[in-house]
Amino acid sequence: MTAERTLHHFPLDPFSRQVRLAMGEKKLDFQELVERYWERPERLEALNASGMTPVLVDQVDGRPLVVAESRAVLEYLEEQYPERPLLPKDAGERAEVRRLQQWFDRKWDFEVNGLLLHEKIEKRLLRIGAPELAALRRGREAVRGHFQYLEHLLGDRDWLACDQLTLADFTAAGHVSVVDYLGELPWDKFPLVKTWYMKLKSRPCFRPLLADKVSPIAPADHYDNLDF
Amino acid sequence: MTAERTLHHFPLDPFSRQVRLAMGEKKLDFQELVERYWERPERLEALNASGMTPVLVDQVDGRPLVVAESRAVLEYLEEQYPERPLLPKDAGERAEVRRLQQWFDRKWDFEVNGLLLHEKIEKRLLRIGAPELAALRRGREAVRGHFQYLEHLLGDRDWLACDQLTLADFTAAGHVSVVDYLGELPWDKFPLVKTWYMKLKSRPCFRPLLADKVSPIAPADHYDNLDF
Repeated sequence: MTAERTLHHFPLDPFSRQVRLAMGEKKLDFQELVERYWERPERLEALNASGMTPVLVDQVDGRPLVVAESRAVLEYLEEQYPERPLLPKDAGERAEVRRLQQWFDRKWDFEVNGLLLHEKIEKRLLRIGAPELAALRRGREAVRGHFQYLEHLLGDRDWLACDQLTLADFTAAGHVSVVDYLGELPWDKFPLVKTWYMKLKSRPCFRPLLADKVSPIAPADHYDNLDF
Repeated sequence: MTAERTLHHFPLDPFSRQVRLAMGEKKLDFQELVERYWERPERLEALNASGMTPVLVDQVDGRPLVVAESRAVLEYLEEQYPERPLLPKDAGERAEVRRLQQWFDRKWDFEVNGLLLHEKIEKRLLRIGAPELAALRRGREAVRGHFQYLEHLLGDRDWLACDQLTLADFTAAGHVSVVDYLGELPWDKFPLVKTWYMKLKSRPCFRPLLADKVSPIAPADHYDNLDF
């Protein structure tokens, strides 16, 4: 039996999605292991003390190397598999990529995921009650603020951080795509953001994400539609 | 007038502290500009759309280069000023450093800062009421859980990520030191964590942090004491 590269992830975890996209773009094959992390599976906790996804188990010189948490996995992929680079060479552009990664992983995560994903996904999977409308409203308002900012950025740039597709796009797409699964994005009011997302969505690396279905939460009707 | 390297920061912001420590360790001189970010100063918002500290304005070939957010600044410093390296060479050790950075920037930030710093710093500076005792209690309990984990890690390692001082130690120290300013750490129950922190605290890069005083929040009595 040959040891394979494996990725422990959860389909609706925005941090896992960033890694699936980057690995897809770099054409790295891997076996997927879905982890329902809130049930605290032992297999996952043995690999990552935080108990969170994503965790990559790569095979290096015939031995397993465990890389846990999206920030570590994305930088690892870039350092070990630089052929299809997702960080620019220029220092200022690299800084811009990582600024935007922190924007999404911290600001969007707190202002959007903490409300919309908590109310519509976590409460459902953990069976801890119905969504609160006031929280959903605040989450939707936060999305509009973020989309306004992205629309502004995409006024001068082909991709989010610069004129090249980078980790910033995949970090953003990891977060945005989960909220899109829930049908909570105001696409029609933000044409540049919509075009940016259409370009991403039509890449081969996006296909596995568009096939995700996490019962009992059904994806929005347009979720896997490339022309939405 | 010569343009200088400047760092926009706030003394009790754990993310700013990470950068001050790393720059101190790398012996990079810089001018400090203190930003009361919750007052949304225009100078800061012009440099960083999130309105948050830290922001480094470096001087490269006689021109300013803006690097915003701790994740971007720390990787930038490592790439541009590698002389005193704070990331190991080994891929597995680099992954371990970044895993721990995400541990502190996400898990500790949510479980500890979101309670203790919110109740004891943010509420005071924003004048939005008195600390809630139940929240403080939960924050202190979370600290004990984190310290248990650090005590376990430090059982086999000289520093947090490996046997070398790395960005993981400075990220951890950025967070831990703000909670220490508030006098909320149970040092005596965690001897290995205490020894680790004493070693850090006695380094020259730590001195500016020990001199911080943010009125009206007084530091704990032992805060600047190297033998606490």
